[in-house]
Amino acid sequence: MLINVERLLTMMEKRRLDGLVATTLENVHYFSGVWSISLRMFPHEGQCYAIVTRDRPTEPVVVSSTGEVDQVLDGYPQIRGTVNFGTFYRELPEGVELTAQESRLKAMSVDPVGAAGPLDGLIDALHKMGLADQRVGVDEMGLRAGFFDALGERLPEMDVVPASDLIRWVRRVKTAEEIHRIRAVARITENAILAAVAIAREGVTEEEMAREFLRSIVSQGASPRFNLIRFGRNAVAGQIEPDRTPLKKGDIIWFDVGCVYRGYWSDIARNFCLGEPDPRARQLYRAMLEGEERAIAEARPGMTGGELFDLTMDAVRQAGAEHYRRHHVGHGIGAEVYEQPLLAPGVETKIEAGMVINVETPYYEFGLGALHVEDPFVVGSDGDNVLLTTMGRDLHIIDP
Amino acid sequence: MLINVERLLTMMEKRRLDGLVATTLENVHYFSGVWSISLRMFPHEGQCYAIVTRDRPTEPVVVSSTGEVDQVLDGYPQIRGTVNFGTFYRELPEGVELTAQESRLKAMSVDPVGAAGPLDGLIDALHKMGLADQRVGVDEMGLRAGFFDALGERLPEMDVVPASDLIRWVRRVKTAEEIHRIRAVARITENAILAAVAIAREGVTEEEMAREFLRSIVSQGASPRFNLIRFGRNAVAGQIEPDRTPLKKGDIIWFDVGCVYRGYWSDIARNFCLGEPDPRARQLYRAMLEGEERAIAEARPGMTGGELFDLTMDAVRQAGAEHYRRHHVGHGIGAEVYEQPLLAPGVETKIEAGMVINVETPYYEFGLGALHVEDPFVVGSDGDNVLLTTMGRDLHIIDP
Repeated sequence: MLINVERLLTMMEKRRLDGLVATTLENVHYFSGVWSISLRMFPHEGQCYAIVTRDRPTEPVVVSSTGEVDQVLDGYPQIRGTVNFGTFYRELPEGVELTAQESRLKAMSVDPVGAAGPLDGLIDALHKMGLADQRVGVDEMGLRAGFFDALGERLPEMDVVPASDLIRWVRRVKTAEEIHRIRAVARITENAILAAVAIAREGVTEEEMAREFLRSIVSQGASPRFNLIRFGRNAVAGQIEPDRTPLKKGDIIWFDVGCVYRGYWSDIARNFCLGEPDPRARQLYRAMLEGEERAIAEARPGMTGGELFDLTMDAVRQAGAEHYRRHHVGHGIGAEVYEQPLLAPGVETKIEAGMVINVETPYYEFGLGALHVEDPFVVGSDGDNVLLTTMGRDLHIIDP
Repeated sequence: MLINVERLLTMMEKRRLDGLVATTLENVHYFSGVWSISLRMFPHEGQCYAIVTRDRPTEPVVVSSTGEVDQVLDGYPQIRGTVNFGTFYRELPEGVELTAQESRLKAMSVDPVGAAGPLDGLIDALHKMGLADQRVGVDEMGLRAGFFDALGERLPEMDVVPASDLIRWVRRVKTAEEIHRIRAVARITENAILAAVAIAREGVTEEEMAREFLRSIVSQGASPRFNLIRFGRNAVAGQIEPDRTPLKKGDIIWFDVGCVYRGYWSDIARNFCLGEPDPRARQLYRAMLEGEERAIAEARPGMTGGELFDLTMDAVRQAGAEHYRRHHVGHGIGAEVYEQPLLAPGVETKIEAGMVINVETPYYEFGLGALHVEDPFVVGSDGDNVLLTTMGRDLHIIDP
């Protein structure tokens, strides 16, 4: 289970919430373990909800279309029940002996009549859970347009409170299971970087290396999300798709790549050079790495995002890249790729023990490309910060 | 270029729109060719816009974060200009000679000061395009919460009209380039199905077959989206992730799979059987296939989605599956996986020449699993419908 129960209850008590409705892919997953196909395939109209109450915060009710309610069987065993909406037929001839799982699916999707639509299903569930006249936080970000207001109109005795930011606050401090998953997805990504680099030689193209990377990602059971892989000066325009540019001796290869595994994100950057790099690039890289290492070593609970930003920038500049400019040097990571705290000028968000911070010191220059090292680490309670990656962070030299 | 210019102008004239703002991943791509990384990575807060005017409908202005404005270089050559927002540093030392592409990037991202945020950038662009006191359709679905109302407040002389449904109406009838891409992504998906089936033998697991499928998808340059691959009776719960169930003789393998390539979706279903299938399953499959084939043969412009639904259901039932029930038998496909027309009871949407319809007759039964054939076809003007897949649609038998 992923939920930070203590922090969830603190928030619900402070905000006097009796219930909480999760609506986005990441929040439904966080509260129920259900990785909704509808929310992935139909970003504008797909709807799936996980609802918890303050007295049973780890036992959600899941509201799902009848067609995908079978996904609940991949969710937490603690799921309290389901409410389904819409029509979907699964035939059950006489005399078929059902497995335990099929019996559960029958009970969820064949026996109950589905609500007319997702909003009706949500309202049914709130009634059934005794929340229709209570104070309920609603993760407004994943709701279809108009649903938030419609909830207030159709349940006039319910006190509806926007809760997307509140859930994000809960999620900032990770549980052991979340850290386990963030470490796993980081490892998968490192493996895929190494698989891609394994084919590096003169003439290999960015596209070939990107495909090798992606084959490794999916072979490990993860889902690709972004794969910025560019050679040499191309990396200054890193958001352009990897193309047919061939690798040349002396090129610095830039990876800024991420994927999702079991609901958790990676976002890792590395540089490799085919043969010896330009001495100035090597020196600048050392400065960037020095900044990243200082951030990992010196992040402490109680610092603000702005303070860790300043410390990191100072370290880079003192290490020889006096002209370094950057708008942020990292961000929380977990169920979303960018979470609080952002490490940016003036950010007041406090760093807390148990946060996972993805720190980075990217440098883009026309003619040079990109120098970039980026890693996730767990903030310890007093300097016992734990890096979640394992591969070296130097500018790796590939023997040409 | 993907835009159906004639249909776009018809809509803009009818609705008296002087301009149109695209905000979603698929619509920004449709109007500009830009496949926004922000919109993919940050589904709740990422923002990127493509704006066209009625007098220059194929020459969009793109509003992008400074950090990803380089993606515009992958977009249409007809892009009229860019407005960037937010801070991002790309250093330019003295004396560096720039390539043509780097010069364009410099002009877009180094020279101009970025707007403070996406809404400011959008407003700047509307001013620059002379739309600030005109009637402008805004694709409301991809806007951050509050932006639609804020536009009306900050540009009181602009007449703002919700336009997501209008753009979807334009996109219903495909251009030659769109059909080319839908055919390409269908072919990629068929190739991946065959790659997965190539490893079918007793003992292979669902998960192994799914990974083989995914490796083929990414090797062909496409992005995985869904891969429902299940064996035998497991397929009744098709939304459960492929697991370690081993393939047995007599199992029917069910694929309901799709991916995205160059902005376009596939959604294809096939069945394979390791050895001889159960005679009843074979007979039911023939009925499902008969329904699908009749829909492909008999769809005509002027029919409604409801009429094509009825025709398909009648065909399945007459072919021997009298008890067949289904809530829809297909949907448009293109830049989104489900587009209008839906083939469902009572749907009044008219079928038009040039639509691409993904027709399917899925059958789910406890104890049996799933029988399912699904393919995209182009509606011709008078019976010259064109199937976009190439592999056989029978229940394929794999020699065990």
